Amino acid sequence: MKNTAEIQKQIIEAVNTVRKKNPMAGSITNTITINFVANAQLAVGGSAAMVYLPEEGEVLAQIGGAFYINVGGLLPIYEQTLPLTAKTLHDAEKPWVLDPVAVGIGTLRTELLSGFKEYKPSIIRGNASEIIALAGLWGLEGENKSNVRGVDSTDTVAAAKTAAIALAEWTGGAVAVSGETDLVTDGSIVVYSHGGSHFMEKITGSGCSLGGVCAVYATAADPFIAALTATAVYNLAGRRAEQKAEGPGDFQIHFLNALYNASAEDIANNPFEIEEV
Amino acid sequence: MKNTAEIQKQIIEAVNTVRKKNPMAGSITNTITINFVANAQLAVGGSAAMVYLPEEGEVLAQIGGAFYINVGGLLPIYEQTLPLTAKTLHDAEKPWVLDPVAVGIGTLRTELLSGFKEYKPSIIRGNASEIIALAGLWGLEGENKSNVRGVDSTDTVAAAKTAAIALAEWTGGAVAVSGETDLVTDGSIVVYSHGGSHFMEKITGSGCSLGGVCAVYATAADPFIAALTATAVYNLAGRRAEQKAEGPGDFQIHFLNALYNASAEDIANNPFEIEEV
Amino acid sequence: MKNTAEIQKQIIEAVNTVRKKNPMAGSITNTITINFVANAQLAVGGSAAMVYLPEEGEVLAQIGGAFYINVGGLLPIYEQTLPLTAKTLHDAEKPWVLDPVAVGIGTLRTELLSGFKEYKPSIIRGNASEIIALAGLWGLEGENKSNVRGVDSTDTVAAAKTAAIALAEWTGGAVAVSGETDLVTDGSIVVYSHGGSHFMEKITGSGCSLGGVCAVYATAADPFIAALTATAVYNLAGRRAEQKAEGPGDFQIHFLNALYNASAEDIANNPFEIEEV
Repeated sequence: MKNTAEIQKQIIEAVNTVRKKNPMAGSITNTITINFVANAQLAVGGSAAMVYLPEEGEVLAQIGGAFYINVGGLLPIYEQTLPLTAKTLHDAEKPWVLDPVAVGIGTLRTELLSGFKEYKPSIIRGNASEIIALAGLWGLEGENKSNVRGVDSTDTVAAAKTAAIALAEWTGGAVAVSGETDLVTDGSIVVYSHGGSHFMEKITGSGCSLGGVCAVYATAADPFIAALTATAVYNLAGRRAEQKAEGPGDFQIHFLNALYNASAEDIANNPFEIEEV
Repeated sequence: MKNTAEIQKQIIEAVNTVRKKNPMAGSITNTITINFVANAQLAVGGSAAMVYLPEEGEVLAQIGGAFYINVGGLLPIYEQTLPLTAKTLHDAEKPWVLDPVAVGIGTLRTELLSGFKEYKPSIIRGNASEIIALAGLWGLEGENKSNVRGVDSTDTVAAAKTAAIALAEWTGGAVAVSGETDLVTDGSIVVYSHGGSHFMEKITGSGCSLGGVCAVYATAADPFIAALTATAVYNLAGRRAEQKAEGPGDFQIHFLNALYNASAEDIANNPFEIEEV
Repeated sequence: MKNTAEIQKQIIEAVNTVRKKNPMAGSITNTITINFVANAQLAVGGSAAMVYLPEEGEVLAQIGGAFYINVGGLLPIYEQTLPLTAKTLHDAEKPWVLDPVAVGIGTLRTELLSGFKEYKPSIIRGNASEIIALAGLWGLEGENKSNVRGVDSTDTVAAAKTAAIALAEWTGGAVAVSGETDLVTDGSIVVYSHGGSHFMEKITGSGCSLGGVCAVYATAADPFIAALTATAVYNLAGRRAEQKAEGPGDFQIHFLNALYNASAEDIANNPFEIEEV
């Protein structure tokens, strides 16, 4: 089992590698928060590119170091673009992040998310309700019942622990559950990451952009470290931004600044605890 | 006829109910300002969800407390999504807000807006030119002629008064006309709301996001109070933000902060006058 | 050949005319940065309108003073919208700006960009790699080979000089190449414009919004002066914003403020050098 010092060392490496290499992570994501996703990816040192068309998803999957797929705000063309892109990522063994926004709502979303099971996303990021619902959809956990209300979570992170572990075991990657305390697991250990801000629920896109940043770090670290690094820098930046913010307007500004200015050491030292599964 | 004290009491209730219950209002809106709409809805205490597909519009119409439809930046799928969503809202008796952006431009927009007549939006929000043009399109007022130039208004709010009243009488709801002084009517009384900022024309989305915020308040108050509460908080926040802003960049930030920080009492006390029709 | 004083006089006229007349420049642009494009256009004094549908592109091309077409993040409908809009602009002799984002990636983008050759965009704006690649695609320059990586440039501005001149000679308009020092040419002279900020690569949309602002100035000046005015105000605002910014979050805010607050004289006095071709 990984220990704290080892994890921190790998976080520092992930942060520094991204800042040095400016890696590109492509995205297919909803138009509501697409700008914030791109700006967050740039703030941590990555490069962003967003597409809609099947062919462009395929190309971007091949040339990027990792990929982010978010199923909020589906467009008609996604029926073709998303399966092709996910298959390309899987076949090319590229790390990719799945954000199962609003899982359970609509037949196209259900069909797309069901189809992703075989392409095994390297990182799955969602709130507790989404993680529980996705595990249910994939037949990995029958007991819990999720409460998805559009994009908001009505379940607790603790309630999603079993589902998160089941998903990570299936994919062989990592799962990050966002909540008051965040949970990141690779199926063998669970890490709880602390910090963030109440303002993160008062702006749109804190979850989506975290998914996009997971993809950036996935170009430079294994899925577990990538998800934890992204979660840690979000918790750190959220806390720092809240100290300066007068409201959700400038919170978003201070948050992007904090993503950009956080040192690798500070990110690694953001409080977390390890729990064996 | 409602008096000032009664209106103020209802505004306070609307503001507090929204902050307490965090109600969801779904939206179908243009991609240009979609992020600002969502952030404004969150800043006043609501929850946001935006969709594109017909099925998702239908579901969101059913599960949300109210809905916002904005016809700027039409996508091809809207030909199916918008009529289905509006019909669903009407059949389910859910309050919904129509923002007839750029009415008169393009056959699809004209067709969609014509079709909305029978679904009677609870609140219609637009600038003077849009309100006059919509009343004309719906055959409710033959004399005035609107001057629509894309998204900008070339008519005065006063010139739109008759059209606004005619629309409100038809829908049985409320109409809000944005301008230097804003006008809100339910067909029986007209209220003039003061405040705002010249910077609101120097940022994109002040009108769209006002429409989205109208929908949030429509989950907690009748259409007239919802439209007036949204207009009042916008006028208040605009004035406060202008006092701090050095330009349109930070105006937007201070504005979101002010939406979030305004007390219910301050919103209710934002200056307005009542005029009987 | 134009001299410095003459150019500065024309820049001042362009800035003042736009601020006085609030001209509308329509856009078809990617959803990632569409909000920033609109806000930048408004900040310099223009009016913005963005569309997707073929018919709306056609109408907006006819009623606007100029147009901006950006081929990032293509949507399926653009296969119809973009050729029709470009043809309409050409036939109506309206100035229009082409931003060949990610030229070389995908068959639809290649097809669209190839088709634009005959419609001769008044201003072509891109980074060095994009300018070299477009000149190659249009068969105007056979020797250089571009390195396009999604949206990022891996070529220098100097390396794109020949391509930029070749493009300007073909269109009879202007070409602006963005980089550490920017290059603007009308095919007969080359101007190097200085300033900007390292933060412009740490936010998304600095290039797109520059293209949108070129279109705003193209309503009030010839393509060369329009492109140079836009480049100059960007370099000035970038430098001023960097002095105040703590990171990429508030850089964007200070940048919009600086676009809004820059005097016409300061824009004209932003350092540039002239070189005869």
